Amino acid sequence: MKIFCSKDALLSAVNAVQKAVSSKNTLPILQGILIKAEQQSLQFAATDLEMGIRCEVPAQVIEEGIMVVPAKLFSEVVRKLPDTTITLEERDKAITICYNQSEIILNGYDPEEFPLLPDLLDPISFTLTTTVFKNMIRQTVFACAVEENRPVFNGSLLQIESSSIRLVATDTHRLAYSIAEIPNPEELNFSGIIPSKTLSEIYRLLRDEDEILTINFSNNQVVFKFGSIYLVSRLIEGQFPNFKQVIPQTCETKVNLSVRSFLEAVERASLLSRDKSGANIIRINVEENELRIDQTSEFGKISEQINVELEGKSVMIAFNAKFLIDALKVINSEQIIFELSGPFSPGVMRPLDDPNYLYLVLPVRTS
Amino acid sequence: MKIFCSKDALLSAVNAVQKAVSSKNTLPILQGILIKAEQQSLQFAATDLEMGIRCEVPAQVIEEGIMVVPAKLFSEVVRKLPDTTITLEERDKAITICYNQSEIILNGYDPEEFPLLPDLLDPISFTLTTTVFKNMIRQTVFACAVEENRPVFNGSLLQIESSSIRLVATDTHRLAYSIAEIPNPEELNFSGIIPSKTLSEIYRLLRDEDEILTINFSNNQVVFKFGSIYLVSRLIEGQFPNFKQVIPQTCETKVNLSVRSFLEAVERASLLSRDKSGANIIRINVEENELRIDQTSEFGKISEQINVELEGKSVMIAFNAKFLIDALKVINSEQIIFELSGPFSPGVMRPLDDPNYLYLVLPVRTS
Repeated sequence: MKIFCSKDALLSAVNAVQKAVSSKNTLPILQGILIKAEQQSLQFAATDLEMGIRCEVPAQVIEEGIMVVPAKLFSEVVRKLPDTTITLEERDKAITICYNQSEIILNGYDPEEFPLLPDLLDPISFTLTTTVFKNMIRQTVFACAVEENRPVFNGSLLQIESSSIRLVATDTHRLAYSIAEIPNPEELNFSGIIPSKTLSEIYRLLRDEDEILTINFSNNQVVFKFGSIYLVSRLIEGQFPNFKQVIPQTCETKVNLSVRSFLEAVERASLLSRDKSGANIIRINVEENELRIDQTSEFGKISEQINVELEGKSVMIAFNAKFLIDALKVINSEQIIFELSGPFSPGVMRPLDDPNYLYLVLPVRTS
Repeated sequence: MKIFCSKDALLSAVNAVQKAVSSKNTLPILQGILIKAEQQSLQFAATDLEMGIRCEVPAQVIEEGIMVVPAKLFSEVVRKLPDTTITLEERDKAITICYNQSEIILNGYDPEEFPLLPDLLDPISFTLTTTVFKNMIRQTVFACAVEENRPVFNGSLLQIESSSIRLVATDTHRLAYSIAEIPNPEELNFSGIIPSKTLSEIYRLLRDEDEILTINFSNNQVVFKFGSIYLVSRLIEGQFPNFKQVIPQTCETKVNLSVRSFLEAVERASLLSRDKSGANIIRINVEENELRIDQTSEFGKISEQINVELEGKSVMIAFNAKFLIDALKVINSEQIIFELSGPFSPGVMRPLDDPNYLYLVLPVRTS
């Protein structure tokens, strides 16, 4: 194979696929990036068998072919290439990179050994706007469990029912829920658990411009297509908890408050509430039109007070500060309604001007 | 004490002094920041006994006084304060921070225990432009030794003689030298070794605008004053090597080359020259009007070739790639003259259009 290509094209392709390169040492070929020259483009592909990414960039193909380069070294080299036309050539698994009067020859892998990224047969297919999906990921993925014996909590439920698409994530201590409209004239249904790593990677790759995102499902795999990216991921097997059952339908207290004031107050209070075990519990007291947080530690004490609108009963309740901060940071609205029902029932945050998002957080029992 | 102050003023003062706060646990008071309210300003001070920084910001002083706050917690709190008028008040070593309707009370230290930053008596004093000194630090400080049994190599020699100021740094493998003009009508001389940590901190604090920098010496201390900053540092005791003796006066080969082309070629070659021991040796071959770097490793090989102007003998010589890269990154000129004298003599880089800088690097003997 032999092609001419710009440095920028190589760099964007390497950046797109690099997170799918295996970081484990089990199978050497998975530390490679497959590069295929076909017609007037280069296809890059990488996979760790859990997730695979393919990306296409333009190139002048002199001779079609296929090669596998060592991912880490190749991407370091590409980053350092001059801004000029680059020639890539492959002969007997040796890859030659030419630029100006210089050249690098890298030892490649055998392309025969590279696992194929599956193309889904007869998939169920949906489309939506990339910016909508990017925001849905941002508002939910942080609530996935990081380390968990039960794999279902390491992913987000993606559910499509009639004209709605939902993302739901929970680590059993809190739950983030986002819903959007999706065209679904054939009324097809789908439900699958997407690994949080896959969602974070899609978030990273999605640009901030509106594009069309296509989601394809079949059996235990899902494919996301957008721009020149094709991303395939396994689904997590298992039963996602019934989130509808968890979300309270009524509440005793509704607190209308400013996201920014509440976030800043919780952040400051958390500076004075860290205990030696690493726990960071803050106590919230809502009474009349005032929300108070009072904390005392060995370093001093804090009394935060913000003005709120209270509807219903006064309440005292304690939360893990991190769980409040995580959600308050991703809510785009200026005001939320924080729904509470005494110190032992979950709190529910709903953006005042956005019925499509909800965040539920369990309180902490304090003695 | 009681003052009113903006959040930004507090934040800039905390940022200015924080690197002088002791990171060791020996003396608790050194983990504090001293805040002194006097006339219409606040003076912040921190010291680890090696280096001390003082910084002044405007404030409305209601009651003069002095207090010592815990540096880490106070700076975390200040970062999270709202953009509003902040009240600081001290009573019996308890520091109250008020904003909006909220307040934080921190346990402070006893100001009596805080070491005074020395004011130099009858110091020798010089002034120069901050941007000039900032560039001098940038072009030399990286050549100081990081860990070294001989402390003189952990600092840079600052030398003032007639109308010249010099900074010289060496770790015995390479030497960076920068000189500038300084007004010195009284022909005073000075020579002292400044810890590299002090110079790096001055570099961080100096803004990119032209200001006046005052340097004061006396005995074993040096003071740098610029903007609202007063930075005092001990000098390193010992004899700095005679750098003039080290710099060759003649050479057999002069290579005129592009800094950018050479830097990029060395960086790429270094990707293929790392051996298992971490050493990163590259071999340079200058012949006719060509500089070549050829490297072979277990991963592949590289042949870099750049056009140069050669005056004198052809030469083959090997260097630690890092030592070349470090210098090429801080040279502001487009072209340098690289002076060489066979494979066993040091190489000397001189910017083509800047006679005030020089970088000397020892070759590596390869078998």
